[in-house]
Amino acid sequence: MQLSDIGEFGLIQRLRARCRSSSREVLAGMGDDAAVIRSGKKKILVTTDMMLEGIHFDLSLTNFQQLGWKFLAVNISDIFAMGGRPKYFFVSLGIPVTCHPKKISELYAGMLRIASKYGVAIIGGDTCASSDGLVLSGTLMGECRRALTRAGAKAGDRIFVTDTLGDSAMGLALLKRKGARGKGQGLIKKHLMPDVAPLKNTAKVTSLIDISDGLLIDLSHICDESKVGALIYSDRVPVSSRLRRAAALLGTDPLQYALGGGEDYALLFTSTEAERKDAFCIGEITGKGRFIVDSRGKRTKFRPEGYEHFK
Amino acid sequence: MQLSDIGEFGLIQRLRARCRSSSREVLAGMGDDAAVIRSGKKKILVTTDMMLEGIHFDLSLTNFQQLGWKFLAVNISDIFAMGGRPKYFFVSLGIPVTCHPKKISELYAGMLRIASKYGVAIIGGDTCASSDGLVLSGTLMGECRRALTRAGAKAGDRIFVTDTLGDSAMGLALLKRKGARGKGQGLIKKHLMPDVAPLKNTAKVTSLIDISDGLLIDLSHICDESKVGALIYSDRVPVSSRLRRAAALLGTDPLQYALGGGEDYALLFTSTEAERKDAFCIGEITGKGRFIVDSRGKRTKFRPEGYEHFK
Repeated sequence: MQLSDIGEFGLIQRLRARCRSSSREVLAGMGDDAAVIRSGKKKILVTTDMMLEGIHFDLSLTNFQQLGWKFLAVNISDIFAMGGRPKYFFVSLGIPVTCHPKKISELYAGMLRIASKYGVAIIGGDTCASSDGLVLSGTLMGECRRALTRAGAKAGDRIFVTDTLGDSAMGLALLKRKGARGKGQGLIKKHLMPDVAPLKNTAKVTSLIDISDGLLIDLSHICDESKVGALIYSDRVPVSSRLRRAAALLGTDPLQYALGGGEDYALLFTSTEAERKDAFCIGEITGKGRFIVDSRGKRTKFRPEGYEHFK
Repeated sequence: MQLSDIGEFGLIQRLRARCRSSSREVLAGMGDDAAVIRSGKKKILVTTDMMLEGIHFDLSLTNFQQLGWKFLAVNISDIFAMGGRPKYFFVSLGIPVTCHPKKISELYAGMLRIASKYGVAIIGGDTCASSDGLVLSGTLMGECRRALTRAGAKAGDRIFVTDTLGDSAMGLALLKRKGARGKGQGLIKKHLMPDVAPLKNTAKVTSLIDISDGLLIDLSHICDESKVGALIYSDRVPVSSRLRRAAALLGTDPLQYALGGGEDYALLFTSTEAERKDAFCIGEITGKGRFIVDSRGKRTKFRPEGYEHFK
């Protein structure tokens, strides 16, 4: 049986169900971007991410400083995705015995660069030898006043994203074709060293998630947890001009990268507001059904598996 | 350059030095059993441990339920080693694609068994495929009123351990010789499913650590952090009768396992008390120098590398 079999993920979901806490201090456990724990007047957020060589990164395509940046960036993104402020990072490393210590120094340099940008302190961890590839496992603690989860979207809310989508997926495609020195450096940088940013003014925000798996998958998480439907207008999905140019050169559809690409680390949220200056409105929440509406008004059902299933 | 080279651990220490937080909320960062963070009137403890197949465990010698137990036990031990109460566990798993889901269910069963014993809730984590061996990474949060660190021991304090030592190391030796079904099941169980227990009545305790690397190494950590010396009376170091019997059969010295074995997960502490009912007094803290005193009164210097160096 393979990890990719749905049976296994089903099993893991059941295992997680066995782990639910009855503590009144635990406001949210597994199933959102971070766990939420009440601590006095504050709420503590905790997220954890594992990155394995050969699965999540390829050391022939990234350097250690970029890897360190991305490792902490994806954790910070999870805290931003709860409306929180990141504070303390704990780093566990499994280091191949053949790895030069200088590389670990570069890894830390990348982590410390984004840590200082967002006021994160690296205050603990564990270091051990690995007999296989490089293993990174991080836990980031943050805090917030109001936790913004995936549940809370209501019919009539508008759907927003904070940045253009698909650059990272195209960057990865270019990296794989031509390596780190090929064309499309802006797109490649979006993949190797993603920018993350918190959402300000969340008073009218009803649900929030970061786009790690791709717009359609992550919007499906909001629909699942909020028990609502969604309409996405394909011509409103923001696509950068550099993604359009790269897609034209490759003869592919840029929207495919924007809808299904993943690793954007932009924020996706719903709000009772009709428009915002800091985000693109791409659609609206409905009672049920999940559709993409094209420029001619034609509706196509979408499913979380990705865009290929519906085009 | 190899991970085991002192140069690399030196480098990692320097990297950690670069990570120290100036936040007044961070009461202790790297270098103790857990980080200590002030949160209102409480102190939050955070510890993280990584266990890699082929380095920390051998799936031909342990089953998944035992592994799950031990994985959480070593984290709980770190919280007990700070005088804290464990609360929330976050589990990241890298699972080989060839691993049967049933094995992961057994891993969780082991974790949940010790979790329920100590009131720990498993409330988050990350699950991914591993292209190599099984990867376990856990972060355990706890809390305490007064954090008991490795610093704080003073000359004149007595040194205590909460349990007999060396069983785990002998258990591992037996496992490697004869496998999991050989003689010495009690010793083997101490290695595969170590018991952990908190220390009660800590009012007069001046420093505390758990014995994970071995008595002499962990006592050296207390001496280093407290800037003191220590005298250990070898005939007071508690050794179980089953360890004595196994050592006699192997023709080895049981004290060697008790002083240098590691993975005991008993607690080692110093106190201003002369004796306690719940722990064995094995020696005393001095101004400087680190000595083992044998039954004839002969002093031998010890170093953290282990007992082999001084016998």
